[in-house]
Amino acid sequence: MEMVNKNAKDITIDELATFCKRKGFVYPSAEIYGGLAGFWDYGHLGTSLKKNFENLWRRYFLGLSDNFYEIEAAEVMPEKVFVASGHLKNFTDIAARCKKGHIGRADQIVEKSVGERAEGLSSEELMGLIQKHKIVCSTCKGVIDYVGPINMMFPIQLGAGTTTTAFLRPETAQSPYVNFKTQNEVTRGQMPLGLALIGRAYRNELSPRNMLLRQRAFTQAELQIFFNPLEINAHPEFDSIKNYKLRVVSREHRNKGVQSISASELAKRIPKFYVYHMAKVQQFYLDFLEFPKDKFRFYELNDKEKAFYNKYHFDMEADLGTLGWVEIGGVHYRTDHDLKGHQEISKQNLTVYDEDTKQKFLPHVLELSFGVDRNFQTLLTFAYEHDAKRDNIVLHLNPKLAPYKAAVLPIVKGEEYEKLAKEILADLRKEFNVLYDRGGSIGRRYARNDEAGTPYCITIDEDSVKKKTVTIRDRDTTKQIRVKIAELNNILRELVSGDVEFDKAGKIVETRVK
Amino acid sequence: MEMVNKNAKDITIDELATFCKRKGFVYPSAEIYGGLAGFWDYGHLGTSLKKNFENLWRRYFLGLSDNFYEIEAAEVMPEKVFVASGHLKNFTDIAARCKKGHIGRADQIVEKSVGERAEGLSSEELMGLIQKHKIVCSTCKGVIDYVGPINMMFPIQLGAGTTTTAFLRPETAQSPYVNFKTQNEVTRGQMPLGLALIGRAYRNELSPRNMLLRQRAFTQAELQIFFNPLEINAHPEFDSIKNYKLRVVSREHRNKGVQSISASELAKRIPKFYVYHMAKVQQFYLDFLEFPKDKFRFYELNDKEKAFYNKYHFDMEADLGTLGWVEIGGVHYRTDHDLKGHQEISKQNLTVYDEDTKQKFLPHVLELSFGVDRNFQTLLTFAYEHDAKRDNIVLHLNPKLAPYKAAVLPIVKGEEYEKLAKEILADLRKEFNVLYDRGGSIGRRYARNDEAGTPYCITIDEDSVKKKTVTIRDRDTTKQIRVKIAELNNILRELVSGDVEFDKAGKIVETRVK
Repeated sequence: MEMVNKNAKDITIDELATFCKRKGFVYPSAEIYGGLAGFWDYGHLGTSLKKNFENLWRRYFLGLSDNFYEIEAAEVMPEKVFVASGHLKNFTDIAARCKKGHIGRADQIVEKSVGERAEGLSSEELMGLIQKHKIVCSTCKGVIDYVGPINMMFPIQLGAGTTTTAFLRPETAQSPYVNFKTQNEVTRGQMPLGLALIGRAYRNELSPRNMLLRQRAFTQAELQIFFNPLEINAHPEFDSIKNYKLRVVSREHRNKGVQSISASELAKRIPKFYVYHMAKVQQFYLDFLEFPKDKFRFYELNDKEKAFYNKYHFDMEADLGTLGWVEIGGVHYRTDHDLKGHQEISKQNLTVYDEDTKQKFLPHVLELSFGVDRNFQTLLTFAYEHDAKRDNIVLHLNPKLAPYKAAVLPIVKGEEYEKLAKEILADLRKEFNVLYDRGGSIGRRYARNDEAGTPYCITIDEDSVKKKTVTIRDRDTTKQIRVKIAELNNILRELVSGDVEFDKAGKIVETRVK
Repeated sequence: MEMVNKNAKDITIDELATFCKRKGFVYPSAEIYGGLAGFWDYGHLGTSLKKNFENLWRRYFLGLSDNFYEIEAAEVMPEKVFVASGHLKNFTDIAARCKKGHIGRADQIVEKSVGERAEGLSSEELMGLIQKHKIVCSTCKGVIDYVGPINMMFPIQLGAGTTTTAFLRPETAQSPYVNFKTQNEVTRGQMPLGLALIGRAYRNELSPRNMLLRQRAFTQAELQIFFNPLEINAHPEFDSIKNYKLRVVSREHRNKGVQSISASELAKRIPKFYVYHMAKVQQFYLDFLEFPKDKFRFYELNDKEKAFYNKYHFDMEADLGTLGWVEIGGVHYRTDHDLKGHQEISKQNLTVYDEDTKQKFLPHVLELSFGVDRNFQTLLTFAYEHDAKRDNIVLHLNPKLAPYKAAVLPIVKGEEYEKLAKEILADLRKEFNVLYDRGGSIGRRYARNDEAGTPYCITIDEDSVKKKTVTIRDRDTTKQIRVKIAELNNILRELVSGDVEFDKAGKIVETRVK
């Protein structure tokens, strides 16, 4: 089933936020207390959609190799971890402070006043612009007298009396790095080793904004691949993707926009091990999740934009219409930056012995990083459509991702109909998340399930009792087919996986309700 | 498959910790930096076992009602939440501090010196005992001059300059309470409403200990059931469990130990709505996860032991051998304590309108609370056995919980065997988490998979190519059966779900390797 969305450009972030709250997808955290800037809670539909995304991510990326594993680690980590990683020194935003102590992000204050991009400028450059344009504090109109870096990590004091300072991790990546030594031992030392982690990271953002795009707590799904740097120019399965076309905005040719570049062409300047994983990431989005092709691209960062330890850095971006192209993840070649830091500070030997070359080496890391909340917001933005004919919102979620795979709707009252509905429900629920919906008119129930993104509505009618059949309605087309109850589980399985087209899954029947 | 463990009493916590690290189940967090007291990381096998437990928990408890839903919420919450819940004032440990500022838990300091239980004593009582027994600081031998409460929550400062104080939640429960108003609206106001949440909670424990039993960050799986207090003495399905026997240590008859009390008998003094859910919790452990019956009990707390807002409070306890009976969860009738607090402090109306009685009421809450890490440690303790005959550890995990459902082991070298193994693997992996294990002797591979708790080892041999059959070895008995490759997926599915006994799933063959 294709993701249909003819009018993504028309959805404002406010409309999306209103819809998400009304249906229980996502809403500001602690809203009865006025919310807490930068924190969001997932309602019952949102939790299901988020977990479905996470499980599909797991299945796809852990499936890339027998030596890729998932781990789970504490979000609170010792200070030394961030001495080694450089976060304690370098993980900063540049803040502007007025005489009364009001603080904001200096680049944003400048952008708002001057109307030009200021991200990436130094403290001195920003202070220069603030003085040149006589920019004042937006809260009190006072003079801004200090511009400088402040660390974005949240410190935590452990114990009482003599306490230990630790930090909420600002990226999940450090957990696999710190766990590398043990996990490499217990999984018996084969390279490449992949350590995946889905978990929370925390950043003290000075200006949380755009719903889930810039939060203070967010979920990352990341795969850290540790490998022998001597083998970066090869991947045993590179040939399987060598003709695959990547959608790339390259650092040299930004003015050309998205170019379609084959993997082997890109591999002339980017290592094959890196390009192979870019291809797998794009296939995850375009083939597995079925993103609309023209709404996905890789965006290559230049030296000024990327973190200093990333040798190659391509962001995955999605076209969110009114918000433009938005970063939803990245492929980062972090070299041995992190393990070298941890080896130095921890005094532990993190090298690996290669049986073939009889040499020790410190593994390099290729990071596949995904912002789960940003992907979630992308999925909803792509799926959302106000259907003028139905005068109703239809959420065209891929059935694999939809919170409920089907809704069972009895449309005739009576004990035997209810009994049959419950039997069908119990059978379906062995395998699928299925909603039972009895309340209101059938039209109202269809509308409600369209809004929840439920791809199939199953109605129980007279023929269900007489002839042991039910109808299935397709969310996107409102077409209906009639199928045997005995075959329902198999048909739903094939519909959800995309193995059969709706029109061919049963006998098309006349639509009673639009 | 039964959980077999003939010698649970012999496992010390150190043995378990050593085993857990060696296999990649769980180990101290940030160990290359010497660890961080009270924080643990889950390795690749542990992550899988933990997630399997969480998924089974989800399937079972969300399956209890069509009106039970899962949500996910921020771990950082505003201060007012904990004013309302009472945590800001009351969530304290009593600390003892010496003149130099060293701090410890006063009850533990007293217990260690005097050898008597001191938990639950007041600051005054503890100070009295410290003075009476002349107990000094264990770090510097100095005089202890202060005994008093300190709050166990971790504060976080949000923003910079003028900051906002928030807290890492000390229990997951407050998230569903704060989300109740919105979730009740979007799910259309039916009572009882269940909101489940699996997530992290944080407590500044002064003395983290006993591996996962007392951590500073831990995972809770909780179901908060909001209901009309007028209906507490009934449950529509009570009759289905009325003769079910609960294993209870009651507050009045502790000296009698565990009593077997039918639900209807217990319902003479405890409300039926409460007893029904106790029965469902016990069935989760004994029937669904197949805990050994004599290692599970409910322990009823008395007024001094339970939180003041809990009207009824039974802990679920597991017998962990050397550690004795340990709390792994609880069934708590929290009345309207939490919603009343949030209604007062947030000034939001949290009442619900009952269509039948035409009355408004503030829902009461029944909380089913589970410590996921404690359950994890329990599962491993129950499963762990040193098998003297095999001279090897065997982990008797229920196949539903086991990280890998099977391992595929080719035992003849050659391209056609490897090809066949990969085909079988690909087929199995459509449905199951399956390990491919080629390294070392077959005996070594069996031993390795016994330790990982993998219930079935599938060997590819000469007959696999000639006759299209494989052998399956049972972890617990080392018996082997031979089955057709074409039937392998179906047979494994039936074995894992427990629908067929091993001996009847195929033709028993002579065991080549112990």
